[in-house]
Amino acid sequence: MKKNFLFGKVWFFEDFKIPTEPQTSTWGFLIEKEIYSGKSKYQKIEIFKTKEFGKILVLDGLVQLATKYEYIYHEMLVHPAFFCHPQPKKILIMGGGDGGALREAVKHRTVKEIFLVDIDRKAIEVSKKYLPSVSQGAFSDKRVKIFIGDASEFVKKYKNYFDIIICDSTDPTGPSFVLWQSKFYRNIKKALNKGGIAGFQTADLKEKFAKRARDKLKKIFPFLKIHKAFIDCFPLDEHTFSFGSERINFDKVDFKKIKERYKKEKIKTKYYSPKIHFASAILPKYVNYK
Amino acid sequence: MKKNFLFGKVWFFEDFKIPTEPQTSTWGFLIEKEIYSGKSKYQKIEIFKTKEFGKILVLDGLVQLATKYEYIYHEMLVHPAFFCHPQPKKILIMGGGDGGALREAVKHRTVKEIFLVDIDRKAIEVSKKYLPSVSQGAFSDKRVKIFIGDASEFVKKYKNYFDIIICDSTDPTGPSFVLWQSKFYRNIKKALNKGGIAGFQTADLKEKFAKRARDKLKKIFPFLKIHKAFIDCFPLDEHTFSFGSERINFDKVDFKKIKERYKKEKIKTKYYSPKIHFASAILPKYVNYK
Repeated sequence: MKKNFLFGKVWFFEDFKIPTEPQTSTWGFLIEKEIYSGKSKYQKIEIFKTKEFGKILVLDGLVQLATKYEYIYHEMLVHPAFFCHPQPKKILIMGGGDGGALREAVKHRTVKEIFLVDIDRKAIEVSKKYLPSVSQGAFSDKRVKIFIGDASEFVKKYKNYFDIIICDSTDPTGPSFVLWQSKFYRNIKKALNKGGIAGFQTADLKEKFAKRARDKLKKIFPFLKIHKAFIDCFPLDEHTFSFGSERINFDKVDFKKIKERYKKEKIKTKYYSPKIHFASAILPKYVNYK
Repeated sequence: MKKNFLFGKVWFFEDFKIPTEPQTSTWGFLIEKEIYSGKSKYQKIEIFKTKEFGKILVLDGLVQLATKYEYIYHEMLVHPAFFCHPQPKKILIMGGGDGGALREAVKHRTVKEIFLVDIDRKAIEVSKKYLPSVSQGAFSDKRVKIFIGDASEFVKKYKNYFDIIICDSTDPTGPSFVLWQSKFYRNIKKALNKGGIAGFQTADLKEKFAKRARDKLKKIFPFLKIHKAFIDCFPLDEHTFSFGSERINFDKVDFKKIKERYKKEKIKTKYYSPKIHFASAILPKYVNYK
């Protein structure tokens, strides 16, 4: 995060650092207070209280979440996968040390077991302490097991096992670099059972590295569906979430069943709805994905 | 537009000036060249060449369009209205001096007559000269008549006349202030014939003045449909477009007919599609509009 004086105030700007894509626009926000600043073995961790976004978690200079808007991101990363699966029981969340994806996953009653593997113990601890509204106690859910380690190694140990794997990685500038490679995606596919679904945060709609990642996923998963949502704390483009499966044809998932289950399981969401599920997968004409 | 030095470069930031809403986030972009800077009777007009957005038109410090992305705005402002109307013939465009809405409107073969009324002759002239890709010759279409004047006065002269009225106003900080009032909306309703449709740019999804405008429209038009789209040159939120009608129930418009007409009339769009038409009107759960 960089400070800058503008319009008579001190603003904080994101450190943009995808090396292949020169930065030509920028955004900043007002900060009320620095809540935490520290370094883990893997990354710089900062938490700020802001005027507009609630608390903001920043890893290596990049905004990861804002407490006021993270629900959009986490609901859209988790629920499209869960609702397309007839009965998700065994779940793996990779990354997601803030506990937001976990919070959404535990809402599903069918779930028996959730593994969360994050490389950075400190990121989990700091999130639990300073951002409790994100996990909302999900770390203590009896179905949840936390592993500290490299997700790309962890996933290799499982074959044909998980119903759903959620990849809640940071962008490929820091420790998450390996989580954006075809090799990793293939290992995820192997760790899923045949009817399993993998869900990925695939960054901005127009960013080149994000497009490349979605292209890789398209080659590996026979069925791939890309959803988009505008998230206020990633404001320069729409964010994408990609869902891959070997067996589940996302275009043939029954809307009525999703609607019924959403009602029956009384899953409370603020952004996601069965209607948004389908609408968010309709991409603008200029996008070359179906 | 304000200059600021940041990350070793000079950036341009928008002048945010909705007086009731303190600015808590900001965005800026790199400029390659200043193409035009002048003052009309009504507003300051600037055109810049940018690294990311193509050319940008700025009125009174606020970005109005970027040549690279204006198609999203103009397609979403025009086509939902035109495709929901069975046979749009008589059209009024208010504001829109850049010619972008006009360009989209002339694509419809049913159209017999388009009036465009803009208060600022200079804005039209500057747009024609420096941003020809926006109007693409639409000003010379034989069906088009240009009027220079106050749209809020112009519309009073018509009763029960237009099939479609498009209100392509700037935000309510400058000469467009009157175009955001209930009185103006009621005059638009009177100028439409009974099956007519009015389309409005209603700014950001979360901005308070924009919400108030949509609330006003909801009280005046028995049927109101709000669409949203992310437009790269208005980042930080999604943009909304609102469509009102006395007779046309937007929820009952036949998807198949729109699809057929889109194909048959060979209307070329880059963002809008019949699918996007419907998907863009599905708003997140937290929004209180239907």
